Amino acid sequence: MRAYDIILKKRNGNRLTKEEIAFFVSSYTKGDIPDYQASALLMAIYFQAMDDEETSFLTEAMMNSGEVYDLSSIPGKKIDKHSTGGVGDKVSIILAPLVASAGVTVPMMSGRGLGHTGGTLDKLESIPGFRTNLTKEEFISNLKKINVAMIGQSEFIAPADKRLYALRDVTGTIESIPLIASSIMSKKLAEGIDGLVLDVKTGSGAFMKKEKDAVRVAKAMAAIGRKMGKKVAALITDMEQPLGNAIGNSLEIKECIEVLKGRGPQDLIDITLELGAYMLKLSGKANNVAKGRGILKRHLSDGSAFQRFKDMIRLQDGDVNVIDNPSLLPSARYTKDLLSERNGYISKMDTEAIGIASCMLGAGRERIEDKIDPAVGIVINKKLGDKIKKGESLALLHYNSEDKLAEAYKKLQDAYLISSKRPKKRQLIRRIIMA
Amino acid sequence: MRAYDIILKKRNGNRLTKEEIAFFVSSYTKGDIPDYQASALLMAIYFQAMDDEETSFLTEAMMNSGEVYDLSSIPGKKIDKHSTGGVGDKVSIILAPLVASAGVTVPMMSGRGLGHTGGTLDKLESIPGFRTNLTKEEFISNLKKINVAMIGQSEFIAPADKRLYALRDVTGTIESIPLIASSIMSKKLAEGIDGLVLDVKTGSGAFMKKEKDAVRVAKAMAAIGRKMGKKVAALITDMEQPLGNAIGNSLEIKECIEVLKGRGPQDLIDITLELGAYMLKLSGKANNVAKGRGILKRHLSDGSAFQRFKDMIRLQDGDVNVIDNPSLLPSARYTKDLLSERNGYISKMDTEAIGIASCMLGAGRERIEDKIDPAVGIVINKKLGDKIKKGESLALLHYNSEDKLAEAYKKLQDAYLISSKRPKKRQLIRRIIMA
Repeated sequence: MRAYDIILKKRNGNRLTKEEIAFFVSSYTKGDIPDYQASALLMAIYFQAMDDEETSFLTEAMMNSGEVYDLSSIPGKKIDKHSTGGVGDKVSIILAPLVASAGVTVPMMSGRGLGHTGGTLDKLESIPGFRTNLTKEEFISNLKKINVAMIGQSEFIAPADKRLYALRDVTGTIESIPLIASSIMSKKLAEGIDGLVLDVKTGSGAFMKKEKDAVRVAKAMAAIGRKMGKKVAALITDMEQPLGNAIGNSLEIKECIEVLKGRGPQDLIDITLELGAYMLKLSGKANNVAKGRGILKRHLSDGSAFQRFKDMIRLQDGDVNVIDNPSLLPSARYTKDLLSERNGYISKMDTEAIGIASCMLGAGRERIEDKIDPAVGIVINKKLGDKIKKGESLALLHYNSEDKLAEAYKKLQDAYLISSKRPKKRQLIRRIIMA
Repeated sequence: MRAYDIILKKRNGNRLTKEEIAFFVSSYTKGDIPDYQASALLMAIYFQAMDDEETSFLTEAMMNSGEVYDLSSIPGKKIDKHSTGGVGDKVSIILAPLVASAGVTVPMMSGRGLGHTGGTLDKLESIPGFRTNLTKEEFISNLKKINVAMIGQSEFIAPADKRLYALRDVTGTIESIPLIASSIMSKKLAEGIDGLVLDVKTGSGAFMKKEKDAVRVAKAMAAIGRKMGKKVAALITDMEQPLGNAIGNSLEIKECIEVLKGRGPQDLIDITLELGAYMLKLSGKANNVAKGRGILKRHLSDGSAFQRFKDMIRLQDGDVNVIDNPSLLPSARYTKDLLSERNGYISKMDTEAIGIASCMLGAGRERIEDKIDPAVGIVINKKLGDKIKKGESLALLHYNSEDKLAEAYKKLQDAYLISSKRPKKRQLIRRIIMA
């Protein structure tokens, strides 16, 4: 088998076999196929795509390039959730302990901030002492004790995906449906889960701005799950505005605590309940989504989800005092309001720009080696459809440096569009795709 | 300027600017852009193509990556011919001295055998002593003396094309019209010529099997010539059967001598006269093609073309005795006839297979380091439309090794299709495209 023939075959629009895909992935990972042939194939895949079967072969090959967790020693169904990323998306931090409190095991592996979006690991690490680098043994032990653990992805998981992703990143081959879908699924399925709920975001703050693209990625991931014998539900959700109000690491942790205490912003509660209800449905703990929603609402209101969250923090060496007293979390020295310059309705929010403004304050990284500031960020006061008066606060910026503030303030200001007509209300959960 | 942005721009189907193309070519040639980004761009060009302007920018950038000859010290027009390659295509060896004898300077740089086709340099080197590696000074001096010199391409000509071609060869990006056209033209225009006649071959023995593709390449090359202020004529010619009868290095030299003496196969004479007539037209030596044809016929019949050929051989240190007495050229120890197994008409010749059969005998290289055998090859006795009887000879194989014969014989045998109906006659010169 030769890499050259595989490139030509895909370039000419033909289907690759399981053997060809496995050969390419394993030879590339071993260094037997050079980067220049891999990038040519990736570009050919960008143009010619892959069908569901090829995409699942690619997923499997990348998954098998590294360690595949075996969680069969843990009783019951293991269900994870994955989000394609957005601004203010702190759902995992509420969802994992909440679903665990309902008796489903949630072995959650998360990532760091990417581009304009924050990362679950960065947010969790604003809790003093909290460790996301558990060993595999600690991870399994915690799952057995309290049904939940939240960790970073091990370097031994899907190394082929890591190499291919790095190559895609510099060769203009990121935006390919089968490549996006297989990259996500190869890592998730290596966790040893039985089912997966996907939150595929679309809108100005998402990586896939167009709903059509989000639906295509969701369908591709659902198809991979189906082909590989895993239960998958994908929710297409709105990212035309930040999720909840808080953006920035410790600010988001505070908002998560609010929700776990039965308060907090309604959009964040709604999306968490919906994703969790599907997790319960996939696990068999609930017969249908409505029942799942009911179970989770109860766990939020009776304090058991909050308790499970505290148990998780404690087991992962975090300081539980800050959870009981969130004012102890890192907080910025200064705040400044962004004031509206006119009367009207919030009719557009460039959510990517809002995410970038938060990164500019120090909440995200520009380069991989940058340190993030856990305290800074933005709290949104007015969202889409809200009425605003001239001089009223649109958002409150939390900052530690005047220089950074100036840049971020301008960026945030330009992100709002205020008009005299109230915009139509957008639907948060836009579409469900089941495998 | 970043390679990444250029890849993305082309991937998304946008036009690249002259500056972007020049930046990419020069940075790649210097090693500042890695192979994996270049191959991604090449594959994007394969799918999104380039318009005539982009293609001429690419040609110019590759041409300017190396030495560009200045032949202005030689009086009169300098006109070259280039063929996209075929089986039995020995036209250059007749054409260059013929056109030179009519007073046009022909600074011809040729190549070696590629794939199933023979190379002009390999053929010329079957003449004992003949040197194709003249220095630039010798080249110019010979052109001044006799209007003609035939040499290999200097390594200083278009090094960017050399690197990009090698990358295309292993990444499945050869078959792209703008990449093929710019590769050929960058080398030819670096010769310092005023005009170029292109022989773009199509059919079973050509690289472009479909006439539609040959026409597209011809048009792209003509457009480059137009954009770069050079006169170009492209002839689309038939390669559904070998050109002339001889295939193999010294066998082809013998056939060239025949034509230069006013004899030889009609198709070879016709195509040589037609290409030469266009060279005379481009140079201004003839007002029209018919007049050019007439001039050249005269130079063939009065012996002046043959004399010019001998002058060229002598000036390039070749043994002129073998020209006067071709039986002194290398000849194979054995011959064997391929006999027809049925009565009928020759209705198809898989010309690529015939070229491969000749290579199998040793006339071509399988690997770049292989030595060729100048003596071996095939002489075709029956061509398309010819009547054949069972037991009659279709071709004569000239060989030096029984092992090689067995393989080549089988290949050649399978290349012929004999049927009871006489096929329609094919037109040799199929189409003319002028810049």
